[in-house]
Amino acid sequence: MAWYVAGVDLGGTKILTVLANEAGDILAEVEVATEPEQGYGAVLDRITETVLRACGQAGVRVGQVAAVGAGAPGPLDPATGVIHQAPNLGWREAPFRDNLAERLGRPVFLENDANLGALGEYTFGAGRGCNEMVFVTVSTGIGGGLILRGEIYGGAGGGAGEIGHIKVVPDGPRCGCGDRGCLEAVASGTAIARRARELIAGGAGAGIAARIGGEAEKVTAATVSAAAGAGDPEARAILDEAARYLGLGLATVLNLLNPELLVLGGGVMRSGRQFWEPMESSLREHSLESAYRRVSLVPAALGGRMGAMGAVALALRGIGAAIPGVE
Amino acid sequence: MAWYVAGVDLGGTKILTVLANEAGDILAEVEVATEPEQGYGAVLDRITETVLRACGQAGVRVGQVAAVGAGAPGPLDPATGVIHQAPNLGWREAPFRDNLAERLGRPVFLENDANLGALGEYTFGAGRGCNEMVFVTVSTGIGGGLILRGEIYGGAGGGAGEIGHIKVVPDGPRCGCGDRGCLEAVASGTAIARRARELIAGGAGAGIAARIGGEAEKVTAATVSAAAGAGDPEARAILDEAARYLGLGLATVLNLLNPELLVLGGGVMRSGRQFWEPMESSLREHSLESAYRRVSLVPAALGGRMGAMGAVALALRGIGAAIPGVE
Repeated sequence: MAWYVAGVDLGGTKILTVLANEAGDILAEVEVATEPEQGYGAVLDRITETVLRACGQAGVRVGQVAAVGAGAPGPLDPATGVIHQAPNLGWREAPFRDNLAERLGRPVFLENDANLGALGEYTFGAGRGCNEMVFVTVSTGIGGGLILRGEIYGGAGGGAGEIGHIKVVPDGPRCGCGDRGCLEAVASGTAIARRARELIAGGAGAGIAARIGGEAEKVTAATVSAAAGAGDPEARAILDEAARYLGLGLATVLNLLNPELLVLGGGVMRSGRQFWEPMESSLREHSLESAYRRVSLVPAALGGRMGAMGAVALALRGIGAAIPGVE
Repeated sequence: MAWYVAGVDLGGTKILTVLANEAGDILAEVEVATEPEQGYGAVLDRITETVLRACGQAGVRVGQVAAVGAGAPGPLDPATGVIHQAPNLGWREAPFRDNLAERLGRPVFLENDANLGALGEYTFGAGRGCNEMVFVTVSTGIGGGLILRGEIYGGAGGGAGEIGHIKVVPDGPRCGCGDRGCLEAVASGTAIARRARELIAGGAGAGIAARIGGEAEKVTAATVSAAAGAGDPEARAILDEAARYLGLGLATVLNLLNPELLVLGGGVMRSGRQFWEPMESSLREHSLESAYRRVSLVPAALGGRMGAMGAVALALRGIGAAIPGVE
């Protein structure tokens, strides 16, 4: 009998669920809004609904789903299936895995979303065949996941890979974690937008301000990226600085972990050469030569499906299936 | 028939070789000067001599030595046994493992010395039973080794664990690696001595200068540590600053790797509470709470035998022996 797996990517704003066959080919895909304000039970119901709808689309019975992989934000414990804290969802100590397994009547495996991004790229995307891989996503925040010896590396508490909280500037800008000078505080989309707002507030940054009708609070990293793409020197300088900090932080990663591959995803990484070039130049400048020589940098390949595909890979691994594309 | 292993710790100034039984108990120990200026072949001869002498001391025939583990400085490849570069020894691309195996007629396993320090502490010292362990040694330089899932983690090229080259101060003091602002450049014994020399050169630091007859070039980290221990406020401030930078760099390690244990060795770590307290306070301040909560900090337990004991563990693992003390 044919069997399938489902991959669920649970985010603060949307839930993306895919149904895949045992080779990891996507057969159906369902996206709904998370609406966390309706409460924990309602979100579990909506996830359940996405799995049922995906099965319906593909003409598959839920009983044929061998396992469900799920990615969720925030510190969580894959071993117990408990989400310790998910600020975007308003949850604390939620026994998410078991609650979802109960509703679906299928085994569920849980991982944090950044680790699943790494596993997705490793299994189906830009990281195929590279057993020592670091995945970094630069968007509103900066997250990451480590694939070491071909497995997600979570460390002692499942929390390894917090690349956004590498310290790069002592006493630097305040970070969401409460500390100062983290990579996320100087190189994320949020940091880029903040720099542009500061510029505009100081009466400069006309080339950026023009794109958002002068309303500084509307500026995003995409605004800065677009202005830089059109040649605006102030926007370029902001991107350049963020990219150089990213290269500096990633040099620490290279020196510590000596990986074979850096897979870079997230909206900010799509700013093109104006971002990649200073990042690479800074990475080369600050890495030990032996570490730099050994690594390749590639853009993430799975885009918005990364987390859901990672969840598919997690489900396949969870039930001990041979992983497609991995020798 | 009883069998044994030898562990060789090759440094720029001395060679320490121990002979151990299959349980890792030391039966004999021989130390000689390295004298690298006599050339590669002469150093290999001296290492061979230490193994023979250790066997002689213990009344063991060389034929009973099942394997030899060896630790050497510098970038090297454990898989090929080639030392790529050992500046202290003046070697480049030396096929050290095979050359030593030929001379001894025994199988040799090679690892870099910082990784062997980690493996030694993990197998026989402060890290026993902790599968996710980071070893850091703070002396003239800052080195480190990673034990992840109970194995040395070398990354793609064998070079992982370069904790001394975590970047902590953008455009900070020049480091031996050629870059600026590395942890080694602000928190090593060399950095502590440099700060004291700068102070004395500027006409201050009388409490430190008094200990070395005013000859600033004679100041070492030990001088600063002794002055601080005697209550000198300038010496205390130097140690405090170095310790805080160490805590900052180690926070990056905690956030990236979420280890169970940090094992801290090397001469500078023996400066006592005046160094440990600001280091721990800075580590707590800059680590993610979930990572800090999960880790314990302990001093290294094997002292100067760390590398040789790591080499013993490497030899035991190399021949597939059960590792004592590890379930």
